[in-house]
Amino acid sequence: MESLKRKIETEGVGVGTEVVKVDMFLNHKIDVQLAVEMGQAFHEAFKDDQVDAILTVEASGIITGMTTAMAFGNIPVIFAKKGERRNIGNDVYTAEVYSFTHQKSNIIRVSRNYLKAGMRVLIIDDFLANGAAINGLISIVEEAGATLVGAGVCIEKGWQPGGDHLRGKGVKLVSLAICDRIEDGKIICRD
Amino acid sequence: MESLKRKIETEGVGVGTEVVKVDMFLNHKIDVQLAVEMGQAFHEAFKDDQVDAILTVEASGIITGMTTAMAFGNIPVIFAKKGERRNIGNDVYTAEVYSFTHQKSNIIRVSRNYLKAGMRVLIIDDFLANGAAINGLISIVEEAGATLVGAGVCIEKGWQPGGDHLRGKGVKLVSLAICDRIEDGKIICRD
Repeated sequence: MESLKRKIETEGVGVGTEVVKVDMFLNHKIDVQLAVEMGQAFHEAFKDDQVDAILTVEASGIITGMTTAMAFGNIPVIFAKKGERRNIGNDVYTAEVYSFTHQKSNIIRVSRNYLKAGMRVLIIDDFLANGAAINGLISIVEEAGATLVGAGVCIEKGWQPGGDHLRGKGVKLVSLAICDRIEDGKIICRD
Repeated sequence: MESLKRKIETEGVGVGTEVVKVDMFLNHKIDVQLAVEMGQAFHEAFKDDQVDAILTVEASGIITGMTTAMAFGNIPVIFAKKGERRNIGNDVYTAEVYSFTHQKSNIIRVSRNYLKAGMRVLIIDDFLANGAAINGLISIVEEAGATLVGAGVCIEKGWQPGGDHLRGKGVKLVSLAICDRIEDGKIICRD
């Protein structure tokens, strides 16, 4: 998605060789027009896949989760909640997600009341690096007996293995921008 | 807002005398159509107030923060981040917010780069009970030298003091639904 790539390259800040800082338009101050366009791009990519619901994870996944759901005609969004405890009752699906950024594990959880067998689910998230969050969401979709339509991410870090791992598993993965590297604080996106 | 009140009364669950559980349409599974209508209702209430940006707090504030910003023609959303530490650098405004639900204090923070003096800010959040989150956001708006246009909340718990306290301070507060009490698991909204 050209407008997103240009935004990442002109406004994003690369820190060291690993950190893609885009909180000026994506995950602290939100460029709402861009978020709407990202939702439309995910809809364009998955519009023939009979999506029943969007599944994402709090907090910043909610942003494009919402705009994607709106592009699909206001289908429901379910967002997984994060916590530190695994034992929070039998009425939830859980998965353990290790965050390399924060160097700790979180448990994500989704109520069994809302994610049901047979639902066709599109996973949306803002970032894909090692794929921990999306793999956690996929395991929850599988545990629920729902059908994974695919996954859409705004920004994939191309030098980390999450994207290729998902493609290797046969997941329909749509990354709106893939960052290839950071050079002197500049983020370089793949054409 | 009639459709929200009916939704709370028909689908919401009251737990004990205090807990308003609406995660079936607001803060776990999202009824996106209703969220769009709530954004339109906030726009209707504040459309003559020259709003430059929406300020909310992660995670579930982002939902109607986004739809409100879209109703205003895609103005920016800034969402405060939550954490446990106060000392995270000089580039942020912080406020301490006590959560009665979770019985602990969080520090909320907003980057000084995004909230600027002179901006006209509308605060949006999903719940208003004791007003801790909204008062924290207001103190951040004041510290930034920005102008508080008002605050919009989806659901006000009428038996808790936050709403009347804000009105008493002269804040333009718009609550789309006010819950008056819980009776045998049913939530009763004010007409």
